[in-house]
Amino acid sequence: MRKFNFKIILQLMGILLLFNGGFMLVSGLVSWYFNDGALNGILLAGGLTVFIGIVLRFATKGFEKKIKKREGYLVVTLGWVTMSLSGALPYILSGAIPSFTDAFFETMSGYTTTGASILNDIEIIPKSILFWRSTTHWIGGMGIIVLAIAILPLLGIGGMQMFAAEAPGPSGDKLHPRITDTAKRLWFLYFGLTLAEAVLLKLAGMGYFDAINHAMSTLSTGGFSTKNASIAFWNDQPLIQYIIIFFMFIAGTNFVLSYFAFKGDFKKYTKDEEFKYYFIIIVSLTIIATIIIYFYASVSIHPTDIQVIAHPKVFGELESSFRHGLFQVLAVVTTTGFVSADYTIWTPFLTVMFLIMMFLGASAGSTAGGVKIVRHIIMIKNGFLEFKRSLHPNAIVPVRYNTKTVTRGIVFNIMAFFILYLIVFAVGSLVFSLMGIDLITSVGAAASSLGNVGPAFGDLSPVNNYSSLPPFGKWWSTMLMLCGRLELFTVLIIFTPYFWKSN
Amino acid sequence: MRKFNFKIILQLMGILLLFNGGFMLVSGLVSWYFNDGALNGILLAGGLTVFIGIVLRFATKGFEKKIKKREGYLVVTLGWVTMSLSGALPYILSGAIPSFTDAFFETMSGYTTTGASILNDIEIIPKSILFWRSTTHWIGGMGIIVLAIAILPLLGIGGMQMFAAEAPGPSGDKLHPRITDTAKRLWFLYFGLTLAEAVLLKLAGMGYFDAINHAMSTLSTGGFSTKNASIAFWNDQPLIQYIIIFFMFIAGTNFVLSYFAFKGDFKKYTKDEEFKYYFIIIVSLTIIATIIIYFYASVSIHPTDIQVIAHPKVFGELESSFRHGLFQVLAVVTTTGFVSADYTIWTPFLTVMFLIMMFLGASAGSTAGGVKIVRHIIMIKNGFLEFKRSLHPNAIVPVRYNTKTVTRGIVFNIMAFFILYLIVFAVGSLVFSLMGIDLITSVGAAASSLGNVGPAFGDLSPVNNYSSLPPFGKWWSTMLMLCGRLELFTVLIIFTPYFWKSN
Ligand SMILES: [K+]
Ligand SMILES: [K+]
Repeated sequence: MRKFNFKIILQLMGILLLFNGGFMLVSGLVSWYFNDGALNGILLAGGLTVFIGIVLRFATKGFEKKIKKREGYLVVTLGWVTMSLSGALPYILSGAIPSFTDAFFETMSGYTTTGASILNDIEIIPKSILFWRSTTHWIGGMGIIVLAIAILPLLGIGGMQMFAAEAPGPSGDKLHPRITDTAKRLWFLYFGLTLAEAVLLKLAGMGYFDAINHAMSTLSTGGFSTKNASIAFWNDQPLIQYIIIFFMFIAGTNFVLSYFAFKGDFKKYTKDEEFKYYFIIIVSLTIIATIIIYFYASVSIHPTDIQVIAHPKVFGELESSFRHGLFQVLAVVTTTGFVSADYTIWTPFLTVMFLIMMFLGASAGSTAGGVKIVRHIIMIKNGFLEFKRSLHPNAIVPVRYNTKTVTRGIVFNIMAFFILYLIVFAVGSLVFSLMGIDLITSVGAAASSLGNVGPAFGDLSPVNNYSSLPPFGKWWSTMLMLCGRLELFTVLIIFTPYFWKSN
Repeated sequence: MRKFNFKIILQLMGILLLFNGGFMLVSGLVSWYFNDGALNGILLAGGLTVFIGIVLRFATKGFEKKIKKREGYLVVTLGWVTMSLSGALPYILSGAIPSFTDAFFETMSGYTTTGASILNDIEIIPKSILFWRSTTHWIGGMGIIVLAIAILPLLGIGGMQMFAAEAPGPSGDKLHPRITDTAKRLWFLYFGLTLAEAVLLKLAGMGYFDAINHAMSTLSTGGFSTKNASIAFWNDQPLIQYIIIFFMFIAGTNFVLSYFAFKGDFKKYTKDEEFKYYFIIIVSLTIIATIIIYFYASVSIHPTDIQVIAHPKVFGELESSFRHGLFQVLAVVTTTGFVSADYTIWTPFLTVMFLIMMFLGASAGSTAGGVKIVRHIIMIKNGFLEFKRSLHPNAIVPVRYNTKTVTRGIVFNIMAFFILYLIVFAVGSLVFSLMGIDLITSVGAAASSLGNVGPAFGDLSPVNNYSSLPPFGKWWSTMLMLCGRLELFTVLIIFTPYFWKSN
């Protein structure tokens, strides 16, 4: 068996823990400011995390500064697990979520930006803990941007591996140190956008605490809210919802494009094929949803009293239908999972449409989960060309994307990814149903967990939460979240014999 | 635009009509024998069909005896439509099914060997019409064997194109006349197996009319029954059900393998990878189903009074659980769709399992519909190898099947087929839901129609039928049946621009 450089792996875990502990201390400051009684628990969690981080770094001193592909997969997967294990400490030690299963679920749901929650009453949780909850989203979103744009392409994984050649540094076996350059710029943009949304939400009338939390939840396409009714809480303040709509759209866009736009180059947006289809998909689905909601569904009547506080029809039926249609389409396509209304009561057609939408995913290089639009574009183009190939078996008919030829290897990889995604989805549904969960709920839980969406169908519809799942169901859901978030291959490759075999 | 040889297409349609008319006259004999009052209608239908066939043949005399790939696709698709249009005549003209939509549905369901029915009371239908109904299955099954083994590989379509090189004659652009040789042998085997099942069923205690009809329904993996309760009618006669189980298994096996076995060469069975997995899948799923039925589901209590006539627990709970588990697993995997019990009330887990099973399909070269096991084998093998390719990007890692290397083009084609299958399934579900049909029923109707299974879920569960669908839903279902039966490409290619463009 080939030797792994475990020292560098542990060293990197140590760095992650220090980083995570630092963020916990920020939540500590929030607790101190609000005097919400969670301070001791958070400080203990932060201290413990920092301590273990320091121990790990010391214990692995003198590690070989060379990381290979295989270690790369382990670092990414173990990184997310390490973050989730330590990130659960503030919940447990503050007493906000005493159960380890529940706390781990909430944390993994945070870092994977899924936003599924086991909390029955969010509004009684100390503010600093809610802030920590949003922070896990924000860190997870940050992590995924860097991962998608800078690291996964080098590992030959993810929708963006076709841009591997354009990634900084030679796309060899080793990870290039220059990725930190790219990372810094993207973080800066991510931070700026979060700040901008928070300021706009505050100006639109949201309280500043809610504004900051929802901004962190939006840019990461996470979906945790500080309100039990999620964004339906502001159904009588359309401006707030339109601001969130705008930033969900941005969060579902490739951050590389937004970076160029930020530098004044808006042409990159218009020239990008994935952006074009992302835009077309959102517009088309919104038109369909609006028409059906307006004519066939009631947007004002909700099954639970949670929504009674809201007055969705501020500007009338049509505006309300449009807003909720657009909001929920973006919430599901960008996999943010915010809730302005319950899409499962919007006619059987929209229910099926929203289920299918869970398999779309927004842009590669965004914080969105799911399959991603670029993969669908390439698969559908290839599907059409397969007809041409049937008629002209000797002709070479390559797929073109963004005016370039996509190599057969990449098309192969994308199709294999999609099929693997569906197999994991099918097995995921089966395992849920094994716990006695009905068909719609099982299928929805698997699709939503794997796609990092959050709300699902049946017992896990947008007006419910995941607290009703049996403990094993919660663990299974976190497994699917992790697999989906890390583009399947990163996690599953570790379970193949090839990974552990020597060269 | 390139010129099509429409004359040969019409000539072949003429031949099909003569052939179909001939079979109608056999049903006429049945009507005369039973004196069931349908004789005039059937003779009129048969006469009309033969007449149009003769007219078509005369009108296209002197056709060029050369058929190219493109005409091949049209012949196959139009052939199935022509058969279904003419095959609906006996239903309409005898008055058994007066509505054209319903009659066309029943006929397309027959020729595609789907076995979904709009008949609320099968047992009041004249015997000759029931015989005609079974005949459509039997002709459809016969057609599909020849298509799958001899014609589609030459068109570069279907799970068996990898054997194209082994097909009789050079696999060039033209269809080789020697395919009729293969066809004759396979028909002989098909006929012999049908006869054998009919004799065995009769010996086991079934009436000879029912025995003949069910034998035709089994070998074609069709599923039409002469009883309202389907095979649950014989729940107190396990021997009859075990005979049907055996022949469903055979019907889901590659007929080329059975042909060699018939000639004494049983090694072909054991050496074939698809057969091995087919066997393993049936055994594994049966064990799972048996255990869950035995411990968690009640096999004796049925929701409708239809099953009260049956006494399923003749040999006790365990035998009954095993028998119904095995029967329904085979009925769904082989896409026969016979019903011995309602699998949708067998716990949520088995409901999800049976839904997923609709996407399996049995062997290529059998009469079963669906995706087929060979495609799953190759996709799963390729999925595993994709991990290896990630780790060794420069290595060439081909998929091996039956000890041979599968070319990348074939793996490509199979993955594209599967993705297309899922897209058609998703669109299929959406269209059903657009008619106000609930999620489970919509999803089930699409999966079952496309996979040529028959029974589905929700309002189309095994104890229901398709009569409740709105008219457009019935047409949409026949469209899916046809697409699924003809391996998608054959039908859909006609709707692509490539097909109609000149070379
Ligand atoms: K989410
Ligand atoms: K069938």
